[in-house]
Amino acid sequence: MRITSLDTFDIRFPTSRELDGSDAMNPDPDYSAAYVILRTDDPRLSGHGFTFTIGRGNDVQVAAIGILRDHVVGRDVAEVCADPGSVSRDLVGDSQLRWLGPEKGVMHMAVGAVVNAVWDLAAKRAGVPLWKLLADADPEWVADQIDYRYLTDALTRSEAVALLRRGRQDMEIREALLIERGYPAYTTSPGWLGYSDEKLTRLAKKAVADGFSQIKLKVGADLADDVRRCRAARAAVGPAIRMAIDANQRWNVGEAIEWVKALAEFDPYWIEEPTSPDDVLGHAAIRAAVAPVKVATGEHVQNRIVFKQLLQAEAIDVLQLDAARVGGVNENLAILLLAAKFGVPVCPHAGGVGLCELVRHLSMFDYVALSGTTTDRVIEYVDHLHEHFADPARVRNGCYVTPTAPGFSAEMLPDSIATYSYPDGVFWRADRGEA
Amino acid sequence: MRITSLDTFDIRFPTSRELDGSDAMNPDPDYSAAYVILRTDDPRLSGHGFTFTIGRGNDVQVAAIGILRDHVVGRDVAEVCADPGSVSRDLVGDSQLRWLGPEKGVMHMAVGAVVNAVWDLAAKRAGVPLWKLLADADPEWVADQIDYRYLTDALTRSEAVALLRRGRQDMEIREALLIERGYPAYTTSPGWLGYSDEKLTRLAKKAVADGFSQIKLKVGADLADDVRRCRAARAAVGPAIRMAIDANQRWNVGEAIEWVKALAEFDPYWIEEPTSPDDVLGHAAIRAAVAPVKVATGEHVQNRIVFKQLLQAEAIDVLQLDAARVGGVNENLAILLLAAKFGVPVCPHAGGVGLCELVRHLSMFDYVALSGTTTDRVIEYVDHLHEHFADPARVRNGCYVTPTAPGFSAEMLPDSIATYSYPDGVFWRADRGEA
Repeated sequence: MRITSLDTFDIRFPTSRELDGSDAMNPDPDYSAAYVILRTDDPRLSGHGFTFTIGRGNDVQVAAIGILRDHVVGRDVAEVCADPGSVSRDLVGDSQLRWLGPEKGVMHMAVGAVVNAVWDLAAKRAGVPLWKLLADADPEWVADQIDYRYLTDALTRSEAVALLRRGRQDMEIREALLIERGYPAYTTSPGWLGYSDEKLTRLAKKAVADGFSQIKLKVGADLADDVRRCRAARAAVGPAIRMAIDANQRWNVGEAIEWVKALAEFDPYWIEEPTSPDDVLGHAAIRAAVAPVKVATGEHVQNRIVFKQLLQAEAIDVLQLDAARVGGVNENLAILLLAAKFGVPVCPHAGGVGLCELVRHLSMFDYVALSGTTTDRVIEYVDHLHEHFADPARVRNGCYVTPTAPGFSAEMLPDSIATYSYPDGVFWRADRGEA
Repeated sequence: MRITSLDTFDIRFPTSRELDGSDAMNPDPDYSAAYVILRTDDPRLSGHGFTFTIGRGNDVQVAAIGILRDHVVGRDVAEVCADPGSVSRDLVGDSQLRWLGPEKGVMHMAVGAVVNAVWDLAAKRAGVPLWKLLADADPEWVADQIDYRYLTDALTRSEAVALLRRGRQDMEIREALLIERGYPAYTTSPGWLGYSDEKLTRLAKKAVADGFSQIKLKVGADLADDVRRCRAARAAVGPAIRMAIDANQRWNVGEAIEWVKALAEFDPYWIEEPTSPDDVLGHAAIRAAVAPVKVATGEHVQNRIVFKQLLQAEAIDVLQLDAARVGGVNENLAILLLAAKFGVPVCPHAGGVGLCELVRHLSMFDYVALSGTTTDRVIEYVDHLHEHFADPARVRNGCYVTPTAPGFSAEMLPDSIATYSYPDGVFWRADRGEA
């Protein structure tokens, strides 16, 4: 059986009309997916993946995924599923395409979409959810999925194997707990910058009532507004609930330090993306200055090499990996192992389109078979767009429910693809007044 | 007068057939340009720019440039030329497109191509070469061209103005010297990895005869080969000529240190790209270990924020800016000012397609009106593909001849565009055996 096609789709949701997802840097996102399906000779077996974008440029991202076609079409499905790392190395290693990064931006996210589709395929073929496939896999095999180039000063293959072996001790107990309780979540739904104070207060109270122990507020556009909104949110949730704040890269280093200190009276748990995701040394300076407020970043961190340095420089307290920003599951395994080595908790970025669906698998693998704990670990949850997915993320009592369907949960419903394909899907045609 | 169109071209040269440009990471590059022309109401006035790529993916880069069309078409030419920074801020600031970076990879290089085309337009309209336009401009105006976001912990606007004011002292003397002598160059032509030892030796001797005081060799694929090639090159050029080596990101940090030490007997002047361009801390570790061999990088450094950290961490001895990797002239002004502030010499990356044509303007501005010196400063020169440009780079006595034609020298000849457009240009049609 072979991979017979790589099909791409430009899918866009008109989220900007409700100010869902609005923050200090992204006032009007149209949550979108550059979506890919790897089809096989078996019409029941396909692998799905995507890059999340916020609108314009989704077509460029789709084009970038498309030029990877020749690397995967025609490959043997059994071989690919037995070693997704071979696909990852092949895609990352294309020397001509590498020039367009290397390992960053549009081209690297395209690699990530295809690599994630391969893992979706592998987990479906194995008949298990991805987190379970990874947790049950041999540590040597998992360690071989990782590209150690540029990592060996912080993480070697033998260290990875040792961490994975240690992580498997008593894993049956954790797996049973995970299935029973799920994985802790926090919610960003109350905190979008475009929401009124009344809506913020109402949603923050609802978050507590729904069982969440952490919420998050967008900040960074106007300090007086932020003071007012943080005060309202803290009043709504009380002192026991963790309240993270997120500046979405709005500040210079000095501004970040001043702004966070001005909000300290509201006891923020972490400050997220205080400055450029590229600024390792800047994050280190901010962390030193704003403690005990923790520093978090990661959703825009381009690859394992920058995460390595954030850890080496003691620049972050919380590592926020993203399922669709880096080069797919293989690179996220490297990032999870780096975090385990340095003892930094991973709290994945989610929301957007389909990110909640994906990252739960990574955190659940981390809990069951690597870090072995959920202490100070939460996955972001945003209640948007889940209805478009075949195996949607669900939260119960403030925890992600553990997925049981085979795959990586990247698969979008055919109706949703048809409706929101841009510019010729049913929704967009109707939006333009076309029949 | 307005900008009436943004036209894009996918131009590819079949350089892989001669192993020109081969190195340890890029065995078979087809030097290419994702090329853009901004046309105006005046058919004699247009602005040209491009991203350099090495083949596959050039179409994705062209698509990325194309989606910037609405940001520039229709804008007033006089306003744009009076403040190219307004275009730069507009393009970098598009929040939806920013998600695809931010400020890195395909989307950021697309911004750079368009911004450079704007500067080409501005310099042509002013009737002067770009280096002269910048050198003669008011320091306050130049300082206003820069985006200080994420820079202020290392460079503020007032510091930039002071550096530019200081740089202008006695600039008439340097301008006259520049026009008389040109700007020092070094050549990479002898050192491509795919060349035989005989060709390497012959070209190295020719480089000395041609007046170059520095050559460069590609290394990193095989240590025994590198020892043999470095020995041959050092024998060919003698002890007085500087010999740089370039690993094109081939190594981990530990490997880089060992490999450079193994080649130290041949007195390499700098080691270029010893590891990932993203690894600021890795470069700092390598630099500390291999001194007195200098550490150089920059051609793949994504933006001013990473350059800032390379300087803050004392990770490099030589800063190799690239004209077409970052967000265009505006960001390169920031990078030149950072280098001036930290006292690190700038030795631009060139070669490829058209990079020699562009970077000479940046170094010449730096000499005349910013750093004020050419000591330990050289521009890379590779004798490839200059015949396709309207104002080609020329080297005489080991120095770049100072360009005098109006513009940024990005303009490619119409015949070359028609011949090498991919896939339907005359060359590529003939190559496929089509009429």
